[in-house]
Amino acid sequence: MAIVSLEKLIEEFRKMPSVGVKSAERMAYYILGLDDEGTKSLVDAISNAHESIHTCKVCCNLTEGEKCGICDNPNRDGSVICVVEDPRDVAAFERTHEYKGVYHVLHGVISPMNGIGPDNIRIKELISRMADDSVNEVIMATNPTAEGEATAMYIARLLKPMGIKVSRLAYGIPVGSDLEYADEVTLTRALAGRNLL
Amino acid sequence: MAIVSLEKLIEEFRKMPSVGVKSAERMAYYILGLDDEGTKSLVDAISNAHESIHTCKVCCNLTEGEKCGICDNPNRDGSVICVVEDPRDVAAFERTHEYKGVYHVLHGVISPMNGIGPDNIRIKELISRMADDSVNEVIMATNPTAEGEATAMYIARLLKPMGIKVSRLAYGIPVGSDLEYADEVTLTRALAGRNLL
Repeated sequence: MAIVSLEKLIEEFRKMPSVGVKSAERMAYYILGLDDEGTKSLVDAISNAHESIHTCKVCCNLTEGEKCGICDNPNRDGSVICVVEDPRDVAAFERTHEYKGVYHVLHGVISPMNGIGPDNIRIKELISRMADDSVNEVIMATNPTAEGEATAMYIARLLKPMGIKVSRLAYGIPVGSDLEYADEVTLTRALAGRNLL
Repeated sequence: MAIVSLEKLIEEFRKMPSVGVKSAERMAYYILGLDDEGTKSLVDAISNAHESIHTCKVCCNLTEGEKCGICDNPNRDGSVICVVEDPRDVAAFERTHEYKGVYHVLHGVISPMNGIGPDNIRIKELISRMADDSVNEVIMATNPTAEGEATAMYIARLLKPMGIKVSRLAYGIPVGSDLEYADEVTLTRALAGRNLL
């Protein structure tokens, strides 16, 4: 009665982040409805992405080449490094079209609860970039969570003795939000960081 | 700057039902985090499911064999056929452990708005099963939507002249629900279909 290859497929989709049983089932039935070409297209996309994408040898961002497009761009300011947790964060900053410096992708945060220590993320690679005297400032842009905060502090303590300026993103109320719904911590930070008009 | 194979992969996931941009991105980054074995496992599951699953030659349910496990089971009552829209509906009925008859999977409903006519779903296959005199009753278990309703009516009109008993699932209030939230149509149907205690 059970269709083994269907169960197996659903199980594979279940492993994906934010995919529950119902979604995995819908996705599996979608596969069954594909023609040969559609299936090949999906399978090839997975295999190609897996084979051709790796991390940039400089900033650890994802790339298909040896260096990523940002590190390879002579118009970017290599003296400022924005440190982020995840390649998706790079994409978020790039969408602002405001940041002209370069990045460093940690691929995670220090999280003792999950057994992730400083050696499990790309901190060593960041430190080695400081050998190049051209770096003036490192902007810690890890997430505003306990772990992101701790990771930013940890890295700042390593870099400051090397004479590097280390900064952190501003905390405050998000643009376009409603004060009524702002949480106390954010509001306190927004007050503390207020600017003169 | 753009990572072509990553964009392509996100695009492929976007095609899946109930997968938006953010989910597709998360799924794509999940793939990039897989090792060779994990990627092979996923790709194989997709290819295997696509190749080995097809429709049962009797009831059009999904199967890896020639006939599905239900049609092939001599303990099931072949005189009662429950007609459903989708293979997932078969799974739902099987979970009740109450239904002992067999099924017929239409693979859709008549939907003129979407260009789906009677010839585009498995109605012909259902009619041809009536050639076997052993069929006593056909239970229309299409969804309680306008299209499911219309499809049930259409099929009933074809079967009744052949002397087949055609029934429809009962409408009413769902077990465990709260009357306060029941919609008017459901409540009207539940009243009309009330049973003596």
